[in-house]
Amino acid sequence: MTSSVGNKIRLSVFGESHGLAIGCTLEGVPSGVKIDFDALMTQMSRRAPGKDKTATTRKEADIPELISGVVDGVTTGAPITIIIKNNDTKSHNYDNLRDNPRPSHADYAASVKYGGANDIRGGGHFSARLTAPIVAAGAICRQILKDEGITVGGHILSIGGVEDKRFDPVNVTDTELEALSSKLFALISPEKEKPMRAEVESARLDCDSVGGAAELAAVGLPVGLGSHMFLGVENVVSNILYGVPAVKGISFGAGFGYAALKGSEANDQMYFDENGAVKCYTNNCGGITGGMTNGMPLIVTVALKPTPSIAKEQKTVNLKTGENTTLKIEGRHDPCIVPRALPVLEAALSIALLDLLALGEEV
Amino acid sequence: MTSSVGNKIRLSVFGESHGLAIGCTLEGVPSGVKIDFDALMTQMSRRAPGKDKTATTRKEADIPELISGVVDGVTTGAPITIIIKNNDTKSHNYDNLRDNPRPSHADYAASVKYGGANDIRGGGHFSARLTAPIVAAGAICRQILKDEGITVGGHILSIGGVEDKRFDPVNVTDTELEALSSKLFALISPEKEKPMRAEVESARLDCDSVGGAAELAAVGLPVGLGSHMFLGVENVVSNILYGVPAVKGISFGAGFGYAALKGSEANDQMYFDENGAVKCYTNNCGGITGGMTNGMPLIVTVALKPTPSIAKEQKTVNLKTGENTTLKIEGRHDPCIVPRALPVLEAALSIALLDLLALGEEV
Amino acid sequence: MTSSVGNKIRLSVFGESHGLAIGCTLEGVPSGVKIDFDALMTQMSRRAPGKDKTATTRKEADIPELISGVVDGVTTGAPITIIIKNNDTKSHNYDNLRDNPRPSHADYAASVKYGGANDIRGGGHFSARLTAPIVAAGAICRQILKDEGITVGGHILSIGGVEDKRFDPVNVTDTELEALSSKLFALISPEKEKPMRAEVESARLDCDSVGGAAELAAVGLPVGLGSHMFLGVENVVSNILYGVPAVKGISFGAGFGYAALKGSEANDQMYFDENGAVKCYTNNCGGITGGMTNGMPLIVTVALKPTPSIAKEQKTVNLKTGENTTLKIEGRHDPCIVPRALPVLEAALSIALLDLLALGEEV
Amino acid sequence: MTSSVGNKIRLSVFGESHGLAIGCTLEGVPSGVKIDFDALMTQMSRRAPGKDKTATTRKEADIPELISGVVDGVTTGAPITIIIKNNDTKSHNYDNLRDNPRPSHADYAASVKYGGANDIRGGGHFSARLTAPIVAAGAICRQILKDEGITVGGHILSIGGVEDKRFDPVNVTDTELEALSSKLFALISPEKEKPMRAEVESARLDCDSVGGAAELAAVGLPVGLGSHMFLGVENVVSNILYGVPAVKGISFGAGFGYAALKGSEANDQMYFDENGAVKCYTNNCGGITGGMTNGMPLIVTVALKPTPSIAKEQKTVNLKTGENTTLKIEGRHDPCIVPRALPVLEAALSIALLDLLALGEEV
Repeated sequence: MTSSVGNKIRLSVFGESHGLAIGCTLEGVPSGVKIDFDALMTQMSRRAPGKDKTATTRKEADIPELISGVVDGVTTGAPITIIIKNNDTKSHNYDNLRDNPRPSHADYAASVKYGGANDIRGGGHFSARLTAPIVAAGAICRQILKDEGITVGGHILSIGGVEDKRFDPVNVTDTELEALSSKLFALISPEKEKPMRAEVESARLDCDSVGGAAELAAVGLPVGLGSHMFLGVENVVSNILYGVPAVKGISFGAGFGYAALKGSEANDQMYFDENGAVKCYTNNCGGITGGMTNGMPLIVTVALKPTPSIAKEQKTVNLKTGENTTLKIEGRHDPCIVPRALPVLEAALSIALLDLLALGEEV
Repeated sequence: MTSSVGNKIRLSVFGESHGLAIGCTLEGVPSGVKIDFDALMTQMSRRAPGKDKTATTRKEADIPELISGVVDGVTTGAPITIIIKNNDTKSHNYDNLRDNPRPSHADYAASVKYGGANDIRGGGHFSARLTAPIVAAGAICRQILKDEGITVGGHILSIGGVEDKRFDPVNVTDTELEALSSKLFALISPEKEKPMRAEVESARLDCDSVGGAAELAAVGLPVGLGSHMFLGVENVVSNILYGVPAVKGISFGAGFGYAALKGSEANDQMYFDENGAVKCYTNNCGGITGGMTNGMPLIVTVALKPTPSIAKEQKTVNLKTGENTTLKIEGRHDPCIVPRALPVLEAALSIALLDLLALGEEV
Repeated sequence: MTSSVGNKIRLSVFGESHGLAIGCTLEGVPSGVKIDFDALMTQMSRRAPGKDKTATTRKEADIPELISGVVDGVTTGAPITIIIKNNDTKSHNYDNLRDNPRPSHADYAASVKYGGANDIRGGGHFSARLTAPIVAAGAICRQILKDEGITVGGHILSIGGVEDKRFDPVNVTDTELEALSSKLFALISPEKEKPMRAEVESARLDCDSVGGAAELAAVGLPVGLGSHMFLGVENVVSNILYGVPAVKGISFGAGFGYAALKGSEANDQMYFDENGAVKCYTNNCGGITGGMTNGMPLIVTVALKPTPSIAKEQKTVNLKTGENTTLKIEGRHDPCIVPRALPVLEAALSIALLDLLALGEEV
Repeated sequence: MTSSVGNKIRLSVFGESHGLAIGCTLEGVPSGVKIDFDALMTQMSRRAPGKDKTATTRKEADIPELISGVVDGVTTGAPITIIIKNNDTKSHNYDNLRDNPRPSHADYAASVKYGGANDIRGGGHFSARLTAPIVAAGAICRQILKDEGITVGGHILSIGGVEDKRFDPVNVTDTELEALSSKLFALISPEKEKPMRAEVESARLDCDSVGGAAELAAVGLPVGLGSHMFLGVENVVSNILYGVPAVKGISFGAGFGYAALKGSEANDQMYFDENGAVKCYTNNCGGITGGMTNGMPLIVTVALKPTPSIAKEQKTVNLKTGENTTLKIEGRHDPCIVPRALPVLEAALSIALLDLLALGEEV
């Protein structure tokens, strides 16, 4: 299995849900950066479990330990390895899953691919718990981006049928993104929190789960990040975002909405603003043309499937007996992954953008 | 600029729209494969310009010349380089574009990134003409996949407001995919061709263009292709598909539709079929769980923006004078890219799948 | 800084000499392999410090902890992360090194590259202590190779002016390699141990150090490993071996001796042996032709420079004052790195060979 | 087969000795560089065959055609593809080689690896003719390095038993390197040309060939190029140099000579020169410490085996009949590859150095 990604900024994720620890190594980070641990912990706590009825009741302090690459809180330029201990593991809950793969989980494919040797406890390396190190690594990247004038943020776009407003793709600001990025339940329209939580609670009480979407943005990006064709912004960003469990769709700017538009409606016409900067009247392209940033805000939309672990009875197969059977998944699970996935998506986007920035220009 | 992609199967694309030739190198292809040139030319002619009112009037024979890696029509195992000559170039049409970037084109970002040295003639390396070598390389990969029992295909999902039926994600067959993959205007419901063409013709007459979407599928994939996290099927496929110009959204299975579903609706429950194979009653996951194929058909949806090159007057900037101005794009352009993009997307998907197959198992 | 390497088998090394821990992540290892911890500890103890007068007096248990990728001693297919705690650190010895770079050490270049933020304590990430995780990762790879019938080994070829016999490049056996690979002071001619130790002891007493060379071999390799040109056996092997500190020269087969040979002397003429296998009468090519294994033993020679940390007074610069100065390096250092480097080189070779094996054939 | 290499500067080589053409694609080259075609042709003609009794009598103009990435002689930033036509091919000479592999050639390993489908004509993709595109790509890289104040050069170090003087590793200059780099038979001591040519002529008349060595250098490199461990200067340089056929040994600075040195002799002690630059009194490390450039000249020594294609009768196997047999290689071959390999090695070194320069610093 390969769990690493990136070009000049490389992330390698390791660990299992019920192993000793999870963690990651982040290579390519510049030296001399004083790590803002408060900002890092803010992001960790946005993702941490056990805070909220929308989430699993598993309690994990999730305090990342930076065991290399940092001396006296300052990066040395060497690879940064982050370790997060696993404490609250209840492995006995998972014993029957090796034979009875959970629908829409990795279980069946992993069983075939790894000949049954993969770690099944809590999902093993396939667990969404593995996103915690991504958040920690992303927080470091986000901080470096901020020093370069680049701000990353996002909000819950929808949960079940309830939708938040979208970003104004032309005018989204760093202040707005920063405010959102410290919230546990980040919304542009805070009044949507109540109906969204109602969707989640309804699913929870019904032993079910519910899906949703997130919208991400970045402002302050220089013009010309990303190389045309296969190392473009869309390629690099989607390559890492699809590493976040539950992501099943990614689009940029008008995305799937582009399909029904005319060119004359879709094209982002240009002008010089009062400071002589090239701007667009609209931002359907989501800040990317020809794979490269064009100076407008980067806008990414991400679809997230409902948590597949539900307590309702489901049909599955027994791989040992070769017979059809049913399964009720026990253990502690999130009835809705969207609030906790949001900081992970922002972190992954930050890693991708720092990689694109580090790739920079030729020679 | 970097225009290469892949792991064990590596594609490197080169050339400019109005240069001597365009082409690509495909590395990692196995030896001993007798190239089916008829099948290759079928795919080339699906993408070739000048066939149809939906497309540019530029005439190009687009006959790929395999200058290496093939002896007597059989692959040698060495890198395959494919050259396609440019014949019908009218470069004088593009002279004013260096100063006046076209809205929603790469022009402005490329001008900043490459300091004005990038080839502006016909879009240079950013031209959609560069997809011709992808089709040629993809045809070779598609043929090798077929030898492994894997069939790739697709259809036009929508043009403007007109939509085709979707694939039956549980029952799509190789026969169906093969039939679609030889068509110039591939639809599941052929009666949609007329209203779709009407959308395109209306846009064309109005000096405008129109967007759309495509749906791709692959059947016959073994269980367990793709490595969890960053080398999963979604990552590898979207990484290459975003290299196709105009793609602004990619989703797998239920994709963005997942957001409004409950887990109990979304989960693909499992059973043993009469042959003892593990199947799912539904296929919302589009054949991928935990980044790995699960034996169900792979289903990918792709959003395509309208061609940005339109003859209508548009607002832009003059980079030389620093003043706002307007632009009418001349030259020959596609009022709708979807029919010609479809074989490119199928080709790119074929390259990604062959790469995943070649990566195979560890040791 | 980037400290990762490999294609399908990827190694990422992290940590600093005087940090909390050092370690590595090994990706791409197959599932279902029962780790032989005794064999692993044999290799660790060959490299461990404090055993011998040829080595530093630093005492480290160097017991690797496998915190991921292994359950009940069996690989799961997920990334294997190995942690080795640092215990016996005496950082106060290094305080003056930030200003006064040690001759022939990374200090000066690192100071320029990392703006003085690199960890100077014990050499930080540049310390040869970082080879301990390579030995652990290599032991796992070596075990998997052994299951495939491939045996890796090596011996001290020279220390100072004292030379061991070379391998018989045509007839080296797995038994011979295995016997060597468990020794602390591996020699083909054991009688050379005494004069070699005398060289080291003489250097130690003189506050000096001494260089040497190692010869490595592998038998049982299938024909055709390695891809011609840039992914050949020589490329992949030297790429990783040059990651071992002190390595300044690598050659294959007759190596630099080839320069003075005639083609008729150098060419390895071929024959069928009694079992119908293709063999060569000689093995000047060291088992590699055209970048690919040819079925003969792989033979690699590695030159190692003397440990640059010596207690003799040396001339250097003071980067703070801008004045020339002198330096006596204190702390604990190896008067000869060759015996401890040997298991590291064998480990690195094992990782490279497993990567080549995993790359295998196209599709 | 994979024939590409590099990180930010990527080279992909394609073609066969007796196919239509050979060539390469070079990615990552900056835009706006006016190509010096005279300098490029100087390098091409140093490598071109048919000039000299030391070389094959095959006549090839070897004029590289830049079919992409260059407009009006100036780089655009897009991938540069270079095509070199094959004209003087005599494929009938090679017919018996498929069954009777040539000793110390790729034939046997390739036959096993590619199932006999590899192109055998003139060595196919394994031919040393494939180094022509490397020279062309390297000439472009060399020119860009020169603009950055970096000069690359080399000389024949030995042919058979005749040795040239070595570079003064402390004082080698750009002027000296440039003068050498335009010569067909580059030597520090020109009086060695006559005895070296006598060695070659003697081998040629005896239907034999002779090996040798080359010494390369680069000056003007900034301090801190290369990342410690696996992306160091030694790793990156040897990774590409081993892609040049006949290379069997590579060392840096004192290289294998280090083995017999004491630390006090080997260490390069430091001082501030009159301009306040940090310099070393000696340069045993060949300009590299900890994988990074230290500001002293880079010194690389390369061992080259004798051309394995000799007209003397040799023992080999008949893969079809399964019987031992003998072989006299006909066709046109170089009795000594060293003079023609030198510009290839310099080119490969230039590509590696430009890649290291392009990798530059993190963010």
